[in-house]
Amino acid sequence: MQTSPLLEYLIENLRCLPGVGPKSAQRMAYHLLQRDRRGGMDLARALTDAMSKIGHCSHCRTFTEEETCTICNNPRRQNSGLLCVVEQPSDIQAIEQTGQFSGRYFVLMGHLSPLDGIGPREIGLDLLQKRLESEHFEEVILATNPTVEGDATANYIAELCLQQGIKASRIAHGIPVGGELEAVDGTTLTHSFLGRREMHY
Amino acid sequence: MQTSPLLEYLIENLRCLPGVGPKSAQRMAYHLLQRDRRGGMDLARALTDAMSKIGHCSHCRTFTEEETCTICNNPRRQNSGLLCVVEQPSDIQAIEQTGQFSGRYFVLMGHLSPLDGIGPREIGLDLLQKRLESEHFEEVILATNPTVEGDATANYIAELCLQQGIKASRIAHGIPVGGELEAVDGTTLTHSFLGRREMHY
Ligand SMILES: [Zn+2]
Ligand SMILES: [Zn+2]
Repeated sequence: MQTSPLLEYLIENLRCLPGVGPKSAQRMAYHLLQRDRRGGMDLARALTDAMSKIGHCSHCRTFTEEETCTICNNPRRQNSGLLCVVEQPSDIQAIEQTGQFSGRYFVLMGHLSPLDGIGPREIGLDLLQKRLESEHFEEVILATNPTVEGDATANYIAELCLQQGIKASRIAHGIPVGGELEAVDGTTLTHSFLGRREMHY
Repeated sequence: MQTSPLLEYLIENLRCLPGVGPKSAQRMAYHLLQRDRRGGMDLARALTDAMSKIGHCSHCRTFTEEETCTICNNPRRQNSGLLCVVEQPSDIQAIEQTGQFSGRYFVLMGHLSPLDGIGPREIGLDLLQKRLESEHFEEVILATNPTVEGDATANYIAELCLQQGIKASRIAHGIPVGGELEAVDGTTLTHSFLGRREMHY
Protein backbone atom coordinates (compact mmCIF):
# COMPACT_ATOMS: atom_id res chain seq x y z
CA MET A 1 0.00 0.00 0.00
CA GLN A 2 1.44 3.31 -1.15
CA THR A 3 0.71 6.45 0.84
CA SER A 4 0.24 8.42 -2.40
CA PRO A 5 -1.63 7.50 -5.61
CA LEU A 6 0.64 9.77 -7.67
CA LEU A 7 3.71 7.98 -6.31
CA GLU A 8 2.14 4.63 -7.12
CA TYR A 9 1.37 5.84 -10.65
CA LEU A 10 4.94 7.03 -11.13
CA ILE A 11 6.41 3.69 -9.99
CA GLU A 12 4.05 1.84 -12.32
CA ASN A 13 4.97 4.01 -15.30
CA LEU A 14 8.73 3.84 -14.74
CA ARG A 15 8.39 0.17 -15.61
CA CYS A 16 7.89 1.00 -19.28
CA LEU A 17 11.67 1.51 -19.35
CA PRO A 18 13.54 -1.65 -20.45
CA GLY A 19 15.36 -3.42 -17.61
CA VAL A 20 13.39 -1.64 -14.87
CA GLY A 21 11.58 -4.01 -12.47
CA PRO A 22 9.33 -3.13 -9.51
CA LYS A 23 12.27 -2.74 -7.10
CA SER A 24 14.29 -0.38 -9.29
CA ALA A 25 11.18 1.57 -10.29
CA GLN A 26 10.52 2.22 -6.59
CA ARG A 27 14.14 3.16 -5.98
CA MET A 28 14.05 5.59 -8.93
CA ALA A 29 10.81 7.24 -7.80
CA TYR A 30 12.05 7.77 -4.23
CA HIS A 31 15.41 9.01 -5.47
CA LEU A 32 13.80 11.67 -7.68
CA LEU A 33 11.31 12.77 -4.99
CA GLN A 34 13.92 12.99 -2.25
CA ARG A 35 16.96 14.21 -4.10
CA ASP A 36 16.33 15.36 -7.65
CA ARG A 37 12.90 16.86 -8.38
CA ARG A 38 14.43 19.25 -10.88
CA GLY A 39 15.99 16.29 -12.73
CA GLY A 40 12.60 14.57 -12.73
CA MET A 41 10.92 17.62 -14.25
CA ASP A 42 13.65 17.96 -16.90
CA LEU A 43 13.28 14.28 -17.77
CA ALA A 44 9.51 14.72 -18.14
CA ARG A 45 10.04 17.56 -20.60
CA ALA A 46 12.70 15.63 -22.51
CA LEU A 47 10.31 12.67 -22.80
CA THR A 48 7.36 14.77 -23.97
CA ASP A 49 9.44 16.57 -26.59
CA ALA A 50 11.12 13.41 -27.87
CA MET A 51 7.95 11.29 -27.99
CA SER A 52 5.85 13.96 -29.69
CA LYS A 53 8.35 15.67 -32.00
CA ILE A 54 10.82 13.03 -33.19
CA GLY A 55 9.89 11.40 -36.49
CA HIS A 56 11.94 9.82 -39.25
CA CYS A 57 14.35 11.44 -41.71
CA SER A 58 12.77 11.53 -45.18
CA HIS A 59 16.14 10.53 -46.68
CA CYS A 60 17.57 7.86 -44.38
CA ARG A 61 14.67 7.00 -42.06
CA THR A 62 16.66 7.53 -38.85
CA PHE A 63 15.21 9.48 -35.92
CA THR A 64 15.03 13.25 -36.30
CA GLU A 65 12.68 16.07 -35.39
CA GLU A 66 13.47 17.79 -38.72
CA GLU A 67 12.48 16.86 -42.30
CA THR A 68 16.00 15.49 -42.80
CA CYS A 69 18.62 14.54 -40.19
CA THR A 70 21.93 16.26 -39.40
CA ILE A 71 23.93 13.56 -41.23
CA CYS A 72 21.86 13.75 -44.42
CA ASN A 73 22.11 17.55 -44.33
CA ASN A 74 25.92 17.49 -44.18
CA PRO A 75 27.32 18.43 -47.67
CA ARG A 76 30.60 16.59 -47.01
CA ARG A 77 28.60 13.42 -46.36
CA GLN A 78 26.64 13.94 -49.55
CA ASN A 79 29.77 13.94 -51.70
CA SER A 80 31.34 10.77 -50.30
CA GLY A 81 29.55 8.42 -52.70
CA LEU A 82 29.15 5.90 -49.88
CA LEU A 83 25.89 4.64 -48.40
CA CYS A 84 25.80 2.43 -45.33
CA VAL A 85 22.63 0.39 -44.72
CA VAL A 86 21.86 -0.51 -41.08
CA GLU A 87 18.94 -2.09 -39.25
CA GLN A 88 18.53 0.39 -36.38
CA PRO A 89 19.20 4.07 -35.60
CA SER A 90 21.42 2.93 -32.73
CA ASP A 91 23.69 1.21 -35.27
CA ILE A 92 24.51 4.64 -36.72
CA GLN A 93 25.74 5.65 -33.27
CA ALA A 94 27.99 2.61 -33.04
CA ILE A 95 29.46 3.19 -36.53
CA GLU A 96 29.95 6.93 -35.99
CA GLN A 97 31.98 6.16 -32.88
CA THR A 98 34.53 4.18 -34.92
CA GLY A 99 35.29 7.30 -36.99
CA GLN A 100 35.79 4.99 -40.02
CA PHE A 101 32.85 6.12 -42.08
CA SER A 102 32.01 9.52 -43.49
CA GLY A 103 29.23 8.68 -45.95
CA ARG A 104 25.48 8.61 -45.61
CA TYR A 105 23.20 6.02 -44.04
CA PHE A 106 19.98 4.24 -44.72
CA VAL A 107 18.09 2.81 -41.75
CA LEU A 108 15.79 -0.15 -42.38
CA MET A 109 14.14 0.04 -38.92
CA GLY A 110 14.24 -3.77 -38.92
CA HIS A 111 15.05 -6.55 -41.36
CA LEU A 112 13.17 -8.76 -43.81
CA SER A 113 11.04 -11.29 -41.96
CA PRO A 114 8.38 -12.69 -44.32
CA LEU A 115 6.79 -14.89 -41.61
CA ASP A 116 6.08 -11.75 -39.56
CA GLY A 117 4.72 -9.92 -42.60
CA ILE A 118 7.79 -7.70 -42.87
CA GLY A 119 8.59 -7.43 -46.54
CA PRO A 120 10.69 -4.97 -48.61
CA ARG A 121 8.11 -2.17 -48.28
CA GLU A 122 7.98 -2.40 -44.48
CA ILE A 123 11.73 -1.81 -44.22
CA GLY A 124 11.64 1.09 -46.69
CA LEU A 125 13.28 -0.62 -49.66
CA ASP A 126 11.03 1.29 -52.09
CA LEU A 127 12.55 4.51 -50.75
CA LEU A 128 16.06 2.99 -50.89
CA GLN A 129 15.53 1.94 -54.51
CA LYS A 130 14.45 5.47 -55.44
CA ARG A 131 17.62 6.81 -53.85
CA LEU A 132 19.79 4.28 -55.68
CA GLU A 133 18.19 5.39 -58.95
CA SER A 134 18.30 9.13 -58.41
CA GLU A 135 21.51 9.75 -56.41
CA HIS A 136 25.10 8.92 -57.21
CA PHE A 137 26.61 6.12 -55.09
CA GLU A 138 29.93 4.38 -55.68
CA GLU A 139 29.39 1.75 -53.04
CA VAL A 140 26.65 0.55 -50.73
CA ILE A 141 27.99 -0.95 -47.50
CA LEU A 142 25.58 -3.49 -46.04
CA ALA A 143 25.93 -3.31 -42.26
CA THR A 144 22.89 -5.32 -41.20
CA ASN A 145 23.40 -7.67 -38.26
CA PRO A 146 25.25 -10.96 -39.00
CA THR A 147 22.13 -13.03 -38.32
CA VAL A 148 20.06 -15.17 -40.68
CA GLU A 149 17.60 -12.30 -41.23
CA GLY A 150 20.34 -9.67 -41.46
CA ASP A 151 22.21 -11.74 -44.06
CA ALA A 152 19.04 -12.35 -46.09
CA THR A 153 18.25 -8.64 -46.01
CA ALA A 154 21.80 -7.78 -47.13
CA ASN A 155 21.55 -10.23 -50.02
CA TYR A 156 18.24 -8.76 -51.10
CA ILE A 157 19.64 -5.22 -51.11
CA ALA A 158 22.84 -6.34 -52.86
CA GLU A 159 20.66 -7.48 -55.75
CA LEU A 160 18.95 -4.07 -55.89
CA CYS A 161 22.41 -2.48 -56.10
CA LEU A 162 23.51 -4.90 -58.82
CA GLN A 163 20.49 -3.90 -60.91
CA GLN A 164 21.67 -0.29 -60.72
CA GLY A 165 25.29 -1.22 -61.38
CA ILE A 166 26.34 -0.10 -57.89
CA LYS A 167 28.99 -2.01 -55.96
CA ALA A 168 27.64 -3.62 -52.78
CA SER A 169 29.86 -4.73 -49.91
CA ARG A 170 29.17 -6.51 -46.66
CA ILE A 171 30.96 -5.69 -43.40
CA ALA A 172 32.66 -8.82 -42.24
CA HIS A 173 35.48 -9.42 -39.83
CA GLY A 174 35.09 -9.36 -36.12
CA ILE A 175 31.38 -9.39 -35.50
CA PRO A 176 30.43 -12.62 -33.74
CA VAL A 177 27.94 -14.59 -35.81
CA GLY A 178 24.45 -14.33 -34.34
CA GLY A 179 25.47 -11.23 -32.36
CA GLU A 180 24.04 -7.74 -32.39
CA LEU A 181 25.96 -5.02 -34.17
CA GLU A 182 25.06 -2.54 -31.45
CA ALA A 183 26.80 -4.61 -28.74
CA VAL A 184 30.18 -4.80 -30.52
CA ASP A 185 33.10 -2.67 -29.31
CA GLY A 186 34.53 0.09 -31.49
CA THR A 187 37.76 -1.74 -32.44
CA THR A 188 35.91 -4.83 -33.63
CA LEU A 189 33.54 -2.68 -35.61
CA THR A 190 36.49 -0.80 -37.14
CA HIS A 191 38.00 -4.09 -38.32
CA SER A 192 34.64 -5.13 -39.58
CA PHE A 193 34.48 -1.98 -41.71
CA LEU A 194 38.04 -2.20 -43.02
CA GLY A 195 37.61 -5.90 -43.85
CA ARG A 196 34.38 -5.53 -45.79
CA ARG A 197 34.18 -7.47 -49.05
CA GLU A 198 32.29 -6.91 -52.26
CA MET A 199 29.21 -9.05 -52.79
CA HIS A 200 29.16 -11.14 -55.97
CA TYR A 201 26.48 -13.20 -57.66
CA MET B 1 27.12 12.34 -32.97
CA GLN B 2 23.38 11.99 -32.60
CA THR B 3 21.14 12.63 -35.59
CA SER B 4 18.65 14.48 -33.37
CA PRO B 5 19.23 17.06 -30.62
CA LEU B 6 15.96 16.05 -28.89
CA LEU B 7 17.12 12.42 -28.79
CA GLU B 8 20.46 13.52 -27.38
CA TYR B 9 18.68 15.58 -24.72
CA LEU B 10 16.47 12.64 -23.78
CA ILE B 11 19.45 10.27 -23.39
CA GLU B 12 21.23 12.87 -21.27
CA ASN B 13 18.21 13.37 -18.99
CA LEU B 14 17.48 9.66 -18.50
CA ARG B 15 20.79 9.56 -16.63
CA CYS B 16 19.22 11.36 -13.66
CA LEU B 17 17.70 7.96 -12.81
CA PRO B 18 19.84 6.00 -10.34
CA GLY B 19 21.69 3.06 -11.90
CA VAL B 20 21.27 4.35 -15.47
CA GLY B 21 24.56 4.82 -17.35
CA PRO B 22 25.11 6.13 -20.90
CA LYS B 23 24.53 2.71 -22.51
CA SER B 24 21.23 1.96 -20.75
CA ALA B 25 20.03 5.55 -21.25
CA GLN B 26 20.53 5.10 -24.99
CA ARG B 27 18.81 1.72 -24.95
CA MET B 28 15.84 3.21 -23.04
CA ALA B 29 15.48 6.17 -25.42
CA TYR B 30 15.54 3.99 -28.54
CA HIS B 31 13.15 1.49 -26.97
CA LEU B 32 10.58 4.19 -26.20
CA LEU B 33 10.91 5.87 -29.61
CA GLN B 34 10.66 2.61 -31.54
CA ARG B 35 8.21 0.60 -29.47
CA ASP B 36 6.44 2.54 -26.75
CA ARG B 37 5.83 6.25 -27.43
CA ARG B 38 2.57 6.08 -25.53
CA GLY B 39 4.41 4.66 -22.50
CA GLY B 40 6.95 7.46 -22.80
CA MET B 41 4.20 10.10 -22.80
CA ASP B 42 2.49 8.48 -19.80
CA LEU B 43 5.79 8.40 -17.94
CA ALA B 44 6.32 12.10 -18.67
CA ARG B 45 2.92 12.94 -17.20
CA ALA B 46 3.52 10.71 -14.16
CA LEU B 47 6.85 12.44 -13.56
CA THR B 48 5.43 15.95 -13.90
CA ASP B 49 2.53 15.21 -11.55
CA ALA B 50 4.67 13.45 -8.95
CA MET B 51 7.49 16.03 -8.95
CA SER B 52 5.17 19.04 -8.79
CA LYS B 53 2.33 17.77 -6.58
CA ILE B 54 3.79 15.35 -4.05
CA GLY B 55 4.72 16.96 -0.75
CA HIS B 56 4.93 15.66 2.80
CA CYS B 57 2.15 14.49 5.13
CA SER B 58 1.62 17.09 7.87
CA HIS B 59 1.24 14.24 10.39
CA CYS B 60 3.89 11.66 9.52
CA ARG B 61 6.09 13.46 6.93
CA THR B 62 5.86 10.70 4.32
CA PHE B 63 5.18 11.48 0.67
CA THR B 64 1.64 12.48 -0.23
CA GLU B 65 -0.12 14.92 -2.56
CA GLU B 66 -2.76 15.58 0.14
CA GLU B 67 -2.50 17.44 3.44
CA THR B 68 -2.35 14.07 5.22
CA CYS B 69 -1.53 10.64 3.79
CA THR B 70 -3.83 7.62 3.31
CA ILE B 71 -2.36 5.83 6.34
CA CYS B 72 -2.77 8.81 8.71
CA ASN B 73 -6.34 9.27 7.46
CA ASN B 74 -7.29 5.66 8.25
CA PRO B 75 -9.43 5.65 11.49
CA ARG B 76 -8.45 2.04 12.31
CA ARG B 77 -4.80 3.09 12.24
CA GLN B 78 -5.54 6.04 14.49
CA ASN B 79 -6.97 3.80 17.23
CA SER B 80 -4.11 1.30 17.36
CA GLY B 81 -2.05 3.28 19.90
CA LEU B 82 1.11 2.29 18.02
CA LEU B 83 3.56 4.60 16.27
CA CYS B 84 6.42 3.30 14.14
CA VAL B 85 9.34 5.66 13.45
CA VAL B 86 11.32 5.05 10.25
CA GLU B 87 14.04 6.88 8.37
CA GLN B 88 12.59 6.82 4.83
CA PRO B 89 9.19 6.66 3.11
CA SER B 90 10.36 3.47 1.38
CA ASP B 91 10.70 1.84 4.83
CA ILE B 92 6.91 2.18 5.25
CA GLN B 93 6.52 0.14 2.07
CA ALA B 94 8.79 -2.60 3.41
CA ILE B 95 6.95 -2.76 6.75
CA GLU B 96 3.48 -2.68 5.17
CA GLN B 97 4.44 -5.69 3.09
CA THR B 98 5.05 -7.77 6.22
CA GLY B 99 1.42 -7.26 7.30
CA GLN B 100 2.65 -7.20 10.92
CA PHE B 101 1.89 -3.60 11.73
CA SER B 102 -1.40 -1.72 11.70
CA GLY B 103 -0.47 1.47 13.53
CA ARG B 104 0.70 4.85 12.35
CA TYR B 105 4.13 5.99 11.16
CA PHE B 106 6.51 8.86 11.56
CA VAL B 107 9.10 9.40 8.84
CA LEU B 108 12.30 11.17 9.82
CA MET B 109 13.48 11.64 6.20
CA GLY B 110 16.99 10.83 7.45
CA HIS B 111 18.74 10.32 10.78
CA LEU B 112 20.64 12.43 13.28
CA SER B 113 24.06 13.34 11.89
CA PRO B 114 25.48 16.29 13.84
CA LEU B 115 28.65 16.50 11.70
CA ASP B 116 26.47 17.10 8.62
CA GLY B 117 24.38 19.68 10.48
CA ILE B 118 21.41 17.31 10.76
CA GLY B 119 19.98 17.80 14.25
CA PRO B 120 16.60 16.97 15.85
CA ARG B 121 14.80 19.78 13.99
CA GLU B 122 16.03 18.66 10.57
CA ILE B 123 14.50 15.21 11.05
CA GLY B 124 11.20 16.62 12.36
CA LEU B 125 11.61 15.72 16.03
CA ASP B 126 9.83 18.93 17.07
CA LEU B 127 6.77 17.71 15.17
CA LEU B 128 7.17 14.22 16.63
CA GLN B 129 7.37 15.65 20.16
CA LYS B 130 4.15 17.61 19.61
CA ARG B 131 2.44 14.41 18.50
CA LEU B 132 3.73 12.50 21.53
CA GLU B 133 2.31 15.25 23.77
CA SER B 134 -1.06 15.66 22.08
CA GLU B 135 -2.01 12.18 20.87
CA HIS B 136 -2.42 8.93 22.75
CA PHE B 137 0.31 6.32 22.08
CA GLU B 138 0.83 3.10 23.99
CA GLU B 139 4.09 2.28 22.29
CA VAL B 140 6.56 3.85 19.90
CA ILE B 141 8.40 1.31 17.75
CA LEU B 142 11.79 2.60 16.66
CA ALA B 143 12.49 1.12 13.23
CA THR B 144 15.46 3.23 12.16
CA ASN B 145 18.27 1.37 10.37
CA PRO B 146 20.61 -0.72 12.60
CA THR B 147 23.55 1.56 11.86
CA VAL B 148 25.51 3.82 14.21
CA GLU B 149 23.40 6.82 13.16
CA GLY B 150 20.13 4.86 13.20
CA ASP B 151 20.87 3.55 16.70
CA ALA B 152 21.80 7.02 17.97
CA THR B 153 18.60 8.44 16.49
CA ALA B 154 16.54 5.64 18.11
CA ASN B 155 18.14 6.33 21.48
CA TYR B 156 17.41 10.04 21.19
CA ILE B 157 13.73 9.40 20.39
CA ALA B 158 13.47 6.77 23.14
CA GLU B 159 14.38 9.52 25.61
CA LEU B 160 11.66 11.79 24.22
CA CYS B 161 9.18 8.94 24.75
CA LEU B 162 10.42 8.31 28.27
CA GLN B 163 9.81 11.97 29.13
CA GLN B 164 6.18 11.51 28.06
CA GLY B 165 5.85 8.18 29.86
CA ILE B 166 5.42 6.31 26.59
CA LYS B 167 6.95 2.87 26.09
CA ALA B 168 9.63 2.81 23.36
CA SER B 169 10.78 -0.38 21.65
CA ARG B 170 13.46 -1.11 19.10
CA ILE B 171 13.03 -3.66 16.30
CA ALA B 172 15.77 -6.19 16.69
CA HIS B 173 16.18 -9.71 15.39
CA GLY B 174 17.15 -10.54 11.89
CA ILE B 175 18.34 -7.26 10.43
CA PRO B 176 22.05 -7.56 9.61
CA VAL B 177 24.02 -4.97 11.58
CA GLY B 178 25.12 -2.14 9.29
CA GLY B 179 22.46 -3.11 6.74
CA GLU B 180 19.61 -1.13 5.27
CA LEU B 181 16.08 -1.83 6.47
CA GLU B 182 14.76 -1.36 2.97
CA ALA B 183 16.88 -4.22 1.58
CA VAL B 184 15.68 -6.85 4.09
CA ASP B 185 13.22 -9.56 3.00
CA GLY B 186 9.71 -9.71 4.48
CA THR B 187 10.27 -12.74 6.71
CA THR B 188 13.33 -11.21 8.33
CA LEU B 189 11.49 -7.97 8.87
CA THR B 190 8.54 -9.88 10.40
CA HIS B 191 10.89 -11.54 12.89
CA SER B 192 12.46 -8.22 13.57
CA PHE B 193 9.03 -6.80 14.45
CA LEU B 194 7.93 -9.74 16.60
CA GLY B 195 11.27 -9.78 18.44
CA ARG B 196 11.32 -6.09 19.30
CA ARG B 197 12.37 -5.25 22.86
CA GLU B 198 11.55 -2.37 25.13
CA MET B 199 14.24 0.25 25.56
CA HIS B 200 15.40 0.91 29.15
CA TYR B 201 17.65 3.50 30.69
ZN1 LIG C 1 18.85 11.28 -42.56
ZN1 LIG D 1 0.80 10.56 7.10
